[in-house]
Amino acid sequence: MAKIAILGFGVVGSGVAEVLTQNKNIIEDKLSEEVEIKYILDLREFPDSPFSDLVIHDFNTILNDPEVNIVAEMMGGSHPAYDFSKAALLAGKSVVTSNKEVVANFGTELLSIAKEKGVAYLFEASVGGGIPIIRPICNDLSSNNIREINGILNGTTNYILTKMTTEGIDFDTVLKDAQDKGYAERNPAADVEGLDAARKIVILAALAFGKAISPSDIHVEGITNITTEDVELAGKLGYSVKLIGHSRLEGGKILAMVSPRLIPASNPLSSISDVFNGILLNGDMVGNVMFYGPGAGKLPTASAVCADIVDIVAHKNDSIKLPEFSLAADTDVADFDEYTCKRFFTFDKCAECTLTKEKAEKCFGQIEAFITEGNRAAVITAPMNEKTAAEINSRLNNCRSYRLL
Amino acid sequence: MAKIAILGFGVVGSGVAEVLTQNKNIIEDKLSEEVEIKYILDLREFPDSPFSDLVIHDFNTILNDPEVNIVAEMMGGSHPAYDFSKAALLAGKSVVTSNKEVVANFGTELLSIAKEKGVAYLFEASVGGGIPIIRPICNDLSSNNIREINGILNGTTNYILTKMTTEGIDFDTVLKDAQDKGYAERNPAADVEGLDAARKIVILAALAFGKAISPSDIHVEGITNITTEDVELAGKLGYSVKLIGHSRLEGGKILAMVSPRLIPASNPLSSISDVFNGILLNGDMVGNVMFYGPGAGKLPTASAVCADIVDIVAHKNDSIKLPEFSLAADTDVADFDEYTCKRFFTFDKCAECTLTKEKAEKCFGQIEAFITEGNRAAVITAPMNEKTAAEINSRLNNCRSYRLL
Repeated sequence: MAKIAILGFGVVGSGVAEVLTQNKNIIEDKLSEEVEIKYILDLREFPDSPFSDLVIHDFNTILNDPEVNIVAEMMGGSHPAYDFSKAALLAGKSVVTSNKEVVANFGTELLSIAKEKGVAYLFEASVGGGIPIIRPICNDLSSNNIREINGILNGTTNYILTKMTTEGIDFDTVLKDAQDKGYAERNPAADVEGLDAARKIVILAALAFGKAISPSDIHVEGITNITTEDVELAGKLGYSVKLIGHSRLEGGKILAMVSPRLIPASNPLSSISDVFNGILLNGDMVGNVMFYGPGAGKLPTASAVCADIVDIVAHKNDSIKLPEFSLAADTDVADFDEYTCKRFFTFDKCAECTLTKEKAEKCFGQIEAFITEGNRAAVITAPMNEKTAAEINSRLNNCRSYRLL
Repeated sequence: MAKIAILGFGVVGSGVAEVLTQNKNIIEDKLSEEVEIKYILDLREFPDSPFSDLVIHDFNTILNDPEVNIVAEMMGGSHPAYDFSKAALLAGKSVVTSNKEVVANFGTELLSIAKEKGVAYLFEASVGGGIPIIRPICNDLSSNNIREINGILNGTTNYILTKMTTEGIDFDTVLKDAQDKGYAERNPAADVEGLDAARKIVILAALAFGKAISPSDIHVEGITNITTEDVELAGKLGYSVKLIGHSRLEGGKILAMVSPRLIPASNPLSSISDVFNGILLNGDMVGNVMFYGPGAGKLPTASAVCADIVDIVAHKNDSIKLPEFSLAADTDVADFDEYTCKRFFTFDKCAECTLTKEKAEKCFGQIEAFITEGNRAAVITAPMNEKTAAEINSRLNNCRSYRLL
């Protein structure tokens, strides 16, 4: 019998208990083995929960119980989640988690301890919520060189951008609505400033390229400066605006970033709306594949955590193949200033000026498209690097610039 | 060292040889073991191929060579592909395949032989080409009751429908164009009449619901009767027309079918165009997840075959978890006549008649929408079963009916 300890009885933790209980039959049919929740660790009591009897407050009870073979860490935050995970692995227990903060910052170390101890450290739920993505990268695309990853990795920001696009409501108003609906936290910084997406793209890049970059070492822009005016101008040129986690190899070095991007309608990411996530991968053999689904939420995320639990129980007597990556050195990371892509600039034009292709090309070099609306103008340029883009940006009145995908 | 024999050196077989050779490094890095192609079985010679030395014509050479531990069956068709696969499994060799015909018709038997012999029978490439789908259903969604599957499972028909929609070209003309481009076979029946999609939905239903229905026992409609006029009328009501493999549980029994369907723009399948495939699954815990990518093609399909090969080599000393399903009995299959969904009818109206909601509801019962164009009219009805739909169809002039998703 597999005995599980759940750390943290919040949204995802209670979801894991619910999935393991509600779908006990289907899980145990697949495993020919019982799976039992033995402990739930939380600071709080849950007198009204059907699981109240399992709630404990001392992690050492779990650590010292040899019957517990799988620890499901659903606490969130770095500490004590990392410390408990490490202690559990060192004690020879497998750990599964949905905690992208811990995986992005300490994944390399925790995987290496797991390997040493012959146990598992799995984190399918840390990226894309319920969407199968970690296991498909490691297994289904194993004979591919992954060339590029582009993902809508944060449901909150995608919901806000969708509302700004379809209803023309400004950022602050939509954020408030999202908070009222429970789609955004009271403190929304990690979502709207891009940090959540940064942690996820760092995890995906580590799986795809074998090197883990720290989320604090990549370029991260959120969506707080996006205006409905910009979104509308982009729309008129045939693009949607999405917050994209992007990673690729540039001359053998890893480039990773999070920023708002213009997505052409032909790209399958462009039609992903509301709180849904989508991850588009390009492999040298398979070409483009995309994974779409609920990027967060209690039961979807728990579904992914439970897949990891089932995997570990199924492989009880065998070695389980863990993801492999090492810490990135400075020399593994591509120079962000050299990153080159098409750009979308929006800016105030002089009231009396009529923007023409010729005038725009004097300022931006070769351009692909331009549009004016009142005293505002927008231009899509040929590919240029970050330095050139920043220089143009500083020259124009009230200018905002976006990368294209 | 793992030694592979490839059966059939056509498009996919030569793709597998190419992936194993071109990405030898990345594959062997993951495995810490060499993977070598020892034989390629084909009736033909390939004097100009870099693999010409490996080509043999007698399957017994492979069967009797104890060094060969994996047979990659890429022959297509039922015979001798099934016979060779069975013989290889009985000889204790693992088999991987992209052959949906064999998996759909003989998968239950071949899986049970594989289990008995302690080897693997894997078929990731049999559905969705390069798209990860079989393994995600079996592993990532293992704690879900799958409730419904809807898939664009055939690239040829999706290409034809996309062209009919975007360019208004009729079926016969687009088919010829698709044949010229190599997207459709000279004999396109298996694609355009829906049999290819039927084999795939049967495989997906077996994985999701545990019972394998014969493709010949499900309702299959192709796209040969679809007119550009119908596609246009559907478009005006906000729907795209796609060939959909559909399966769900109805009162514990399995319903599976292939037919053209109207897809609302809000469904992520609606924007999948050209030769791409997409599979949308609904699980009771995860909700909707979709897998999108190239549903066919040399290297994408080979990418999936090679994922199976890597999986088998990685688990060499361990048991590999195989998909599990048994043959469906008649009592496992839902009554198709009772299948109930919204319908789209297009028909000739009398020249002098003005269609009103009231008139339409006299004929169709409650309706959701209607439209007229010249002497043609179209109506979207409330849900009704197959019998009622057939009865209405027979009453109207030159009527065609479609299911909605």
